[in-house]
Amino acid sequence: MEERSQLEKLMKVSELKEPKPTILKVGGSVITDKNKELDAKTQVMNRLAEEIQQAKIENLVVVHGGGGFGHPTAQKYNIKAGLKEENQKVGFAETHHIMTMLNGLFMDAFMWHKIPAVSVTPSSCIITENGRIQYFEYTLMKMLLQMDFLPVLYGDAVLDTKLGFTILSGDQLISRLAVGLNAERIIVGVDVDGLYNCDPKAEKNAKLFAHLTLEELKKLQKKTVKPTACDVTGGMFGKIAELIPAIEHGISAKIVNATKPNHIYKVLKGEDVQGTLIEKE
Amino acid sequence: MEERSQLEKLMKVSELKEPKPTILKVGGSVITDKNKELDAKTQVMNRLAEEIQQAKIENLVVVHGGGGFGHPTAQKYNIKAGLKEENQKVGFAETHHIMTMLNGLFMDAFMWHKIPAVSVTPSSCIITENGRIQYFEYTLMKMLLQMDFLPVLYGDAVLDTKLGFTILSGDQLISRLAVGLNAERIIVGVDVDGLYNCDPKAEKNAKLFAHLTLEELKKLQKKTVKPTACDVTGGMFGKIAELIPAIEHGISAKIVNATKPNHIYKVLKGEDVQGTLIEKE
Repeated sequence: MEERSQLEKLMKVSELKEPKPTILKVGGSVITDKNKELDAKTQVMNRLAEEIQQAKIENLVVVHGGGGFGHPTAQKYNIKAGLKEENQKVGFAETHHIMTMLNGLFMDAFMWHKIPAVSVTPSSCIITENGRIQYFEYTLMKMLLQMDFLPVLYGDAVLDTKLGFTILSGDQLISRLAVGLNAERIIVGVDVDGLYNCDPKAEKNAKLFAHLTLEELKKLQKKTVKPTACDVTGGMFGKIAELIPAIEHGISAKIVNATKPNHIYKVLKGEDVQGTLIEKE
Repeated sequence: MEERSQLEKLMKVSELKEPKPTILKVGGSVITDKNKELDAKTQVMNRLAEEIQQAKIENLVVVHGGGGFGHPTAQKYNIKAGLKEENQKVGFAETHHIMTMLNGLFMDAFMWHKIPAVSVTPSSCIITENGRIQYFEYTLMKMLLQMDFLPVLYGDAVLDTKLGFTILSGDQLISRLAVGLNAERIIVGVDVDGLYNCDPKAEKNAKLFAHLTLEELKKLQKKTVKPTACDVTGGMFGKIAELIPAIEHGISAKIVNATKPNHIYKVLKGEDVQGTLIEKE
């Protein structure tokens, strides 16, 4: 019996505590070169693993995007739109394979830092309906968190009850995980300093939002439905809009530049970092 | 509506056919050097992918073992016995990571052969209880088979409700998959010609069983419980004993030598190959 209770202590199941995790998204543009195929930034992965290790925070979930790994293959075979032709099946297989390969490189960096990180393969445990998560069993994720593992997920090619298959973005995943796991906060690491009123890569005078309420975010969303010369915020708005359900749930989201050393470390530690904080009120 | 029915046709969901798959196990000793760490036999993986592609059989599930990848790390941290010390957590993470890496190499061979193979990560969808599969949702596997994908699984480090975590062998996996998916047959590819009365690597006069009934297999099991000088059949018997529930279910199992070219091709095609056939009666 003693061994059992030691196990329970290790698993922390007996404490029955709500994990209240932090969900950290690492954009595909941070860990790959989005404009080149299969160009992984392993040095960046290594630095991020080090920052995560140094921050020593409990209850962390990492989700990363596909960048130059997942996107070109998914686009080539039009995987997001669903199954229409036989030859797309090989494309689905390739998209999933290439995402597991990118994930493997990131996991390597975690292993070198002796972080107990465990990859959780979205396509092995999630089924979508018309592109939205329909089936996702959270027990396994909760067990991993209670045992102090760091679950790592990623955007993936997944089965879909209506479309046959589709692409599940890391952005939808973080929002659903945040609500499903009753997260404390979301951190979104991207390759710019936060959310701007214009694409900061195209427009010199783009203004960074330091703080947005849910209401302000929704107003911004309405504005971007009718495109103007200066509205798409570098394509980032569509990603951020995925966060709305989580923010409505009272979970804050901070968008920071993960390409800048120590920004992820600081935001994990709760220190002041440049970026955009989005809160319900 | 027309597109929907085309999708249903592609998914074959409307036909509601039982997949009746073939479950093919590829032993870790076939695709790795069991006596060296991290020595993957990529040429063998490539040949097997070619044989599978050439055989063109529908409804196939592949499960592979860990060999020189999974076993050394799992042993080093004593993962199978469950969570007892904090430092095992990194060992659990490493064991899972290294198995996904081995799987990735095998998946690469499938991709090069344009086989729509999709890896299904056991630790992302299976939870065991005292080392036996307790939770496994088959819907995803059935969807993959109905859509003519080739699911590929592997021995993995998994969470366990009693032990914290443990090792799930590919052998337990094939037996459970065979029963859960109502399989037609099981094929077990190993590095010897079948099941012998002695270890064929140690004993020159070892005799190959060409055919065994369930009753004969159980008699053999009783014999091996009391070890004699010549009984352990090269450690293979424990693996084969896992198959008993599937054979009781009426599913046949054929053990063949997967290191010999074309043996897997022939057995997939139903052609005559040297090996051990185990049937209920």
